[in-house]
Amino acid sequence: MKEVKEYSLMVENAIKSLGLPVEKLDGLYSPIVYGMAEGGKRLRPVMTLMACEAFGADAQKAIHAGVGLEMYHNFTLLHDDVMDNSDVRRGRPTVHRKWDANTAILSGDTMLTLATQLMMRVDDACLRSVLETFNDMSINVFEGQQWDMDFEKRDDVTLDEYMTMITGKTSALLGCAAKVGALIAGASAEDAQAMYDFGVSLGLAFQIKDDYLDVYGDPATFGKPIGGDILNNKKTYLMLLGLSSDKGDALREAMTLAASQEKIDAVRDIYNEAGIPAMCEAAIKDYSSAAVAHIESTSMSAEGKEVFKRLIDSLVGRTR
Amino acid sequence: MKEVKEYSLMVENAIKSLGLPVEKLDGLYSPIVYGMAEGGKRLRPVMTLMACEAFGADAQKAIHAGVGLEMYHNFTLLHDDVMDNSDVRRGRPTVHRKWDANTAILSGDTMLTLATQLMMRVDDACLRSVLETFNDMSINVFEGQQWDMDFEKRDDVTLDEYMTMITGKTSALLGCAAKVGALIAGASAEDAQAMYDFGVSLGLAFQIKDDYLDVYGDPATFGKPIGGDILNNKKTYLMLLGLSSDKGDALREAMTLAASQEKIDAVRDIYNEAGIPAMCEAAIKDYSSAAVAHIESTSMSAEGKEVFKRLIDSLVGRTR
Repeated sequence: MKEVKEYSLMVENAIKSLGLPVEKLDGLYSPIVYGMAEGGKRLRPVMTLMACEAFGADAQKAIHAGVGLEMYHNFTLLHDDVMDNSDVRRGRPTVHRKWDANTAILSGDTMLTLATQLMMRVDDACLRSVLETFNDMSINVFEGQQWDMDFEKRDDVTLDEYMTMITGKTSALLGCAAKVGALIAGASAEDAQAMYDFGVSLGLAFQIKDDYLDVYGDPATFGKPIGGDILNNKKTYLMLLGLSSDKGDALREAMTLAASQEKIDAVRDIYNEAGIPAMCEAAIKDYSSAAVAHIESTSMSAEGKEVFKRLIDSLVGRTR
Repeated sequence: MKEVKEYSLMVENAIKSLGLPVEKLDGLYSPIVYGMAEGGKRLRPVMTLMACEAFGADAQKAIHAGVGLEMYHNFTLLHDDVMDNSDVRRGRPTVHRKWDANTAILSGDTMLTLATQLMMRVDDACLRSVLETFNDMSINVFEGQQWDMDFEKRDDVTLDEYMTMITGKTSALLGCAAKVGALIAGASAEDAQAMYDFGVSLGLAFQIKDDYLDVYGDPATFGKPIGGDILNNKKTYLMLLGLSSDKGDALREAMTLAASQEKIDAVRDIYNEAGIPAMCEAAIKDYSSAAVAHIESTSMSAEGKEVFKRLIDSLVGRTR
């Protein structure tokens, strides 16, 4: 098997070879090329390629489906940025700022159909299972986004509801990416399901870690200003744990403060007093361990298991 | 075979039986139920059911795919109404007015995936061809919508470009509806293609007639105020014919008038002088005749041909 960066390179090359007809309809396709550029590690397609190879097939067999999932991921970013009215994504203007909202809507719609077309570039034997997995994931993502928008208007969101939301909005796509790679390689239904469960657990660990780093991360490496979620009173894993702790009243009061460094410090102090950091670390470890257990439960090659465990370590810290 | 209204009733019942989980996520699914309600004749799924039966299979075999195409059609309306900032659709507030733009975007996205799921409820034997037809249609629709938006900013749109635009935005979905019904019934590739070409020709006749009725229609039956396209200087079939006629300069001057009954009358007078009504009638007749010829070229039952020719007559006038 290959290193993560080699799979990333395969994805990058496949994206460059998409051949979207920009010269035919610049207004529709240029924003798609823009949205697909500079995507970091390409985590989702990399997981698809890795899973395909770990179950004994050539990674190249899964390249179109992998790019389809990257296309899907970037479609959701185009529409989310309209819905959240965000100005910046990965250090560049969002599509609806660089062009306009209508462009982000229509080019995003186009990306969803292009993604489905890419998912269909698999053998007939797994066409239905791959597409069912993809469509189910898509519904989960939309439901997760709806819950996220609903939660903004509510004061009584529970931790269980939050986990349901991020399972849809973040984890379902990782689960789908891993499962689709397995399906393309001809893995059994049990192995494919275990890969889905692995991806979901990894996604939950990853999201909780992201919430944690917003408060406790190193400003030099986090990529976003520390404390952004606190300033926006965003319902994160930490916030919901804090509200249901015996420091709930103090936290509710701190949330009424105007956005300031003082507010960030006040909320962080409450989190520390309530023992939130240790609870986050425990949750990340639990979900990471579950991800490892799902990998171990499959019949993939020993080398495949090792590569996936290294991926888990690199994303959410050492679990062994 | 059945009458159109019987097929419509089958579609209406299937839509009522969709069982969308409104109680689970009201904010996401209620706008979809709202968007799918009161849809008129349900022309697209009716064409799918009719084509399926005309090629010898039970119409019930195509019911889910038919509803999928109706779902797709209504998805485009949700997003188009956001992009056009429209307040009213079929006499009711649009989704983005009754709820908000974010709801129209996200519920619309969900409808596109739900539509794809419905298209998959066909036999394995035609799964790939049905989905390829559906996805190709979807790309055509998005490209047509992009051209439509681009045309608004341009003064040099040609009649050829206009035909390309409406082939994508309006006709591709009718072609897809007819072809998918044929594919589900197991029709040959030639017959399926002829059904697609039939739908496209019908759609072109239908769109030109719609443009024509905006100027010359009976206010009592047209459903919209007469002259709306003229007031908006909309690039219609009539407008583009007029601009390229020897009355082009007079038309360009009339287009600078403020929105008023006077403007509608002035433009209509120019159309009359340029002989536009007769040119429209000829084009409608040509495309209708082409639609009939495509139906005649297939191997469907004589009864099927008769039912389709009656449908053409009812939509765009008698061609025989």
